[in-house]
Amino acid sequence: MLTVFSEKHALHAPANELAGGGFRAPVEIPQRAEAVREGLLSFGGGTLCKPDDLHKPDDFGSEMILAIHDSDYVEFLRTIWQAWNAAGNKNDVVPSVWPSRSMPGRTVPPAHDLEGRVGYYALAAETTIQEGTWQAAYWAAQTALTATAAVRNGLGAAFGLCRPPGHHASKNQYGGYCFLNNAAIAAQDFIHAGAERVAVLDVDFHHGNGTQEIFYDRKDVYYISLHGDPEHTFPNFLGYADERGSGVGEGFNLNFPYPPGTGWNLWQEGLNQACRYYTDYGAEALVVSLGVDTFHNDPLSFFRLTQEDYLEAGRMIAQLNLPTVFILEGGYDIENIGENVSSYLAGFSQARKA
Amino acid sequence: MLTVFSEKHALHAPANELAGGGFRAPVEIPQRAEAVREGLLSFGGGTLCKPDDLHKPDDFGSEMILAIHDSDYVEFLRTIWQAWNAAGNKNDVVPSVWPSRSMPGRTVPPAHDLEGRVGYYALAAETTIQEGTWQAAYWAAQTALTATAAVRNGLGAAFGLCRPPGHHASKNQYGGYCFLNNAAIAAQDFIHAGAERVAVLDVDFHHGNGTQEIFYDRKDVYYISLHGDPEHTFPNFLGYADERGSGVGEGFNLNFPYPPGTGWNLWQEGLNQACRYYTDYGAEALVVSLGVDTFHNDPLSFFRLTQEDYLEAGRMIAQLNLPTVFILEGGYDIENIGENVSSYLAGFSQARKA
Repeated sequence: MLTVFSEKHALHAPANELAGGGFRAPVEIPQRAEAVREGLLSFGGGTLCKPDDLHKPDDFGSEMILAIHDSDYVEFLRTIWQAWNAAGNKNDVVPSVWPSRSMPGRTVPPAHDLEGRVGYYALAAETTIQEGTWQAAYWAAQTALTATAAVRNGLGAAFGLCRPPGHHASKNQYGGYCFLNNAAIAAQDFIHAGAERVAVLDVDFHHGNGTQEIFYDRKDVYYISLHGDPEHTFPNFLGYADERGSGVGEGFNLNFPYPPGTGWNLWQEGLNQACRYYTDYGAEALVVSLGVDTFHNDPLSFFRLTQEDYLEAGRMIAQLNLPTVFILEGGYDIENIGENVSSYLAGFSQARKA
Repeated sequence: MLTVFSEKHALHAPANELAGGGFRAPVEIPQRAEAVREGLLSFGGGTLCKPDDLHKPDDFGSEMILAIHDSDYVEFLRTIWQAWNAAGNKNDVVPSVWPSRSMPGRTVPPAHDLEGRVGYYALAAETTIQEGTWQAAYWAAQTALTATAAVRNGLGAAFGLCRPPGHHASKNQYGGYCFLNNAAIAAQDFIHAGAERVAVLDVDFHHGNGTQEIFYDRKDVYYISLHGDPEHTFPNFLGYADERGSGVGEGFNLNFPYPPGTGWNLWQEGLNQACRYYTDYGAEALVVSLGVDTFHNDPLSFFRLTQEDYLEAGRMIAQLNLPTVFILEGGYDIENIGENVSSYLAGFSQARKA
């Protein structure tokens, strides 16, 4: 399968992440993307992805990024580290204050305070910003756009090996390891090229709150997510079953929150339903937010999926018979992430060829 | 002046605080309260506060606390550290995810995730919760209530040497070093005893977002705050001049945000106005949120006030001629905090005797 990959992902390399009241070794690290690349090349004796299938991203500029994200937010991402550093901060950027439930109403960031500006644009605090974060995020978006362009131009499927991931990034907030919403940018690119009904299927363990927020009041993009119940896990405040879209988008957002211990039997029911809904919808293209932190051994997960399950899930997705862009999201079991991602793509490819 | 002080404040002793992207040595520390106590006893050769003037708080229970704060929030404060610790977290409690601008709508915390529960009840991340935090906060509230009771019972003025401070704590969120809103609890205690118009004057360097939120739609408590412009400093998202109350409370909330470099000339204009408004209001009692982080040498401040200014400010407040409860809020220049607080109270006492 054609795979788009940029070495620039490594420019985003967190030193630590906030969890459990302290800084711990980060889990969203450059080794993830390298392990996926290596896993793809070696999977199935090199039959899934040959070295020639590995492409660098083209630079499509900022048009699609700005079709999804607010320009002030993009400018913030582009410039915050330098401003933060110039102000004498030795550490990476971490928010400490934000517009809270009891501080409502502000729709602009404070003009002259970096801590306040950071908190305005952050939706969580585990995600740090470093010198190379913007470059890495920019090229992750280009990676998604390059994979999408290949599919728009006639290829049945492609994989955007994006890092940092994207599905938690909203129109104007970062967090959950995400800065630019690569999957949303890919979906928007299909729309921009004329599609009227794009399916975004999110199989990451976590709810893609950013993708949901971005398309919540639209019917041209139908977001369906299978994920850990936010009563139990990040992002905690979005991803509930009663969130079904608003305005003309009502009915075009669907969440399947699942409890701890969820395995294949329950999970595949949701995937089956999602596929049926997408068929009824008349989807013209599919973007898959491909997180493999549903893996039974993932450090962040309470799902119990296996590599065999991923092969089967890939087959089920293939049966939608849609032009398909896979976008890498989460997955933190580095030892298995390469095979996990490859299993999805291999199941998909096998079913497409059958 | 009668001063209420509990040694239990020391049960809240943060190990660090999040700022500038990392953990630094905390500034809201037990030494603050000890320095204020010692400063009071020694100020003016021991004439301001004699050892006999120092009282331990009585225990008034939770009635006034629950008149200000939601019961689920109080229960959270009471129990979170034990739950956090039992879950295996070695560090103090720090939020990492919260109901963000792009995750709107949830009015309950996630049921089964501690990180999510903490973030739901937090409005900032610099404030840690430890084993003794609830006890310290509870006794700070009792300290405020004991000082208020003395004034209600006929004493002209009293000082609640509260720690942790309170004015950032909202109905159901903690942060900015605050957990229970001691000043709001004192004001409510006046109302409970029959007062119909209570003035809350907040001279802390930071806007008292919690106090504002608590009384925003009420006219029986008139909140006026002089503070660093939130465009430049914490709490960043509340404290702007256009926030004037809502409903029947409209016109009974007043903010004076001041820019970096503000000194006595500008600041006293606001204090003068506040005093005039309180007189026009017909205030029956006064609660002063007494922060001395307006001091020119305070590590968190960009104001330039001096101890002589505090003497004069105390005199101006005395001229309101109201039953007055002073409640300690911020102030982080430990070397000077005792004299700074004493100067306010001495100016007040001198003017009252004159």
